[in-house]
Amino acid sequence: MELPFPGTKIPDGPAIRHIQEQNRAMVKETPVLTCQTLNKLTGTELFFKCENFQKAGAFKFRGASSAVWELSQHQPGAAVCTHSSGNHAQALALAARLHNMKAHIVMPENAPQVKVDAVRDYGGVITFCEPTLQAREATLEKVQHETGAVFIHPYNDYRVIRGQATCFYEMLQQLNEEPDYIITPLGGGGLLSGTLLTAKYFTSATKVIGAEPIMANDAWQSFQQNKFIPSQNPVTIADGLKTSLGTLTYPLIMENAHDIITASEVSIVQAMKWVWERMKIVIEPSAAVPLAALMENPDRFVSKKVGIIFSGGNVDLKKLPWI
Amino acid sequence: MELPFPGTKIPDGPAIRHIQEQNRAMVKETPVLTCQTLNKLTGTELFFKCENFQKAGAFKFRGASSAVWELSQHQPGAAVCTHSSGNHAQALALAARLHNMKAHIVMPENAPQVKVDAVRDYGGVITFCEPTLQAREATLEKVQHETGAVFIHPYNDYRVIRGQATCFYEMLQQLNEEPDYIITPLGGGGLLSGTLLTAKYFTSATKVIGAEPIMANDAWQSFQQNKFIPSQNPVTIADGLKTSLGTLTYPLIMENAHDIITASEVSIVQAMKWVWERMKIVIEPSAAVPLAALMENPDRFVSKKVGIIFSGGNVDLKKLPWI
Repeated sequence: MELPFPGTKIPDGPAIRHIQEQNRAMVKETPVLTCQTLNKLTGTELFFKCENFQKAGAFKFRGASSAVWELSQHQPGAAVCTHSSGNHAQALALAARLHNMKAHIVMPENAPQVKVDAVRDYGGVITFCEPTLQAREATLEKVQHETGAVFIHPYNDYRVIRGQATCFYEMLQQLNEEPDYIITPLGGGGLLSGTLLTAKYFTSATKVIGAEPIMANDAWQSFQQNKFIPSQNPVTIADGLKTSLGTLTYPLIMENAHDIITASEVSIVQAMKWVWERMKIVIEPSAAVPLAALMENPDRFVSKKVGIIFSGGNVDLKKLPWI
Repeated sequence: MELPFPGTKIPDGPAIRHIQEQNRAMVKETPVLTCQTLNKLTGTELFFKCENFQKAGAFKFRGASSAVWELSQHQPGAAVCTHSSGNHAQALALAARLHNMKAHIVMPENAPQVKVDAVRDYGGVITFCEPTLQAREATLEKVQHETGAVFIHPYNDYRVIRGQATCFYEMLQQLNEEPDYIITPLGGGGLLSGTLLTAKYFTSATKVIGAEPIMANDAWQSFQQNKFIPSQNPVTIADGLKTSLGTLTYPLIMENAHDIITASEVSIVQAMKWVWERMKIVIEPSAAVPLAALMENPDRFVSKKVGIIFSGGNVDLKKLPWI
């Protein structure tokens, strides 16, 4: 079956470049920052792509904008929906509003008030459900049925992956030369998949690595065993990285990733604190995982140029892990 | 008596431009950031000069670098000294090291360990003293006598003021047009004095305003009564802004400032939290005072272009005011 929009194909180089152009007015060009102190500490030349400064506070806005834009080309007047209590919910609500679309967001009734408020501020229409995956999916199905809204998955969707690919694409434009490595946080695999595609089409030798909390290392296990291992009751402070890989992201990652590395909870908190203290910027725990994993594997990165994607900056300032 | 370096004269336009050129390799060019959410919240077009990203975490490094550079021109081989437990201590230690000078820092024996460590990391030689102003001054005098080091005052020194002037000078180069207002935090008056001089020489109509905690409003009182009122036992979270004006900064400010405005402790914490949450950057309480004061005086700034200097980002992440 052929679906009526290009989101059903793996994005290639021209598709990535095209969505970057299309979204230029919508998506923020985020800065690439460096930090002498962290360079010294790691013996590495680090380049940080700051998606914590992205609209809605995370790279998720790139994927949501890409999906909403593609949808608007083929189904003008469509609405979108998703279930999420995280960054994707906010990103989709905002992207939809900027395209004059309606966004229906299914959220668990115990979602933090700050996240509920953020989705509402961006004009999202919230339907609450019980806090189980089953209830989420049932409620989403009901919302889809009643509204005709199109489901935009947080990562298992080529339209979304295509948007996430623009993050590293933009970073390459900003750097003078391609880095030896680029490391991204790894949860469902949307950002890593997009980064892999960009590296494939626009670099000659950059090695792409995913970084996971060791307490949610399902992708690492999958990579080691070369078979799909789902995430099982992960407990980690990096709450954006708990999900399993998807049917689209799993094969992309298995085939193209250079490696998957992990970080302990202690390292994640330490790396996050270093970034706040030394770089004076706010990143969320998930965003600190690549730096934490690099610090646990210093030898392989010594004297290399390493790009790191700071995936987001949405934290509850009243609940910081070092208090 | 004429002292042997230009730091004894009020810096003029060419002097400011010259030190900006001289320090280019040393001082970081910090970005000017904007934030749509804060613009909407205030009805103002805000431009934030991010000295929290400056070396040693605050604008103080500009003044210290300027002073150390000027000294190195006239007394090669000299050492510098100061008494401070704040940003000036770290800034002077680092600036001296980068000029291959020795820096002697007098600190109270109850100074926070994190600040002691920072000064030591930058190569500063610390002499501890009892935590009274009297002990500080006596100890500094002893250090000066024993080492021959030149005292660099944190703000009451034209060499320092000249360096602080480069902050707004650099900001003007980065903006397309001059702002209607520029607001700086106001403690001893070094940053405000430098900003006033830059505005005088390089803008046609920018109004310069100092912002003080209402709990440390000695400069506001001085401005209202047109006579020098010293700071008396101020209690404020903005610990960088507790000091009195100096003999050099007082007349500069009285003569040139457009106004002095104040902010309550609650507003300072609120403004600081907004910046962390919305802009995803770390600023210290003192740096939040201009935005807090603007929010308490919204009418006069509506629809205006307002520059704000985020003076620094050195905070103890374990002691945040909203916990």
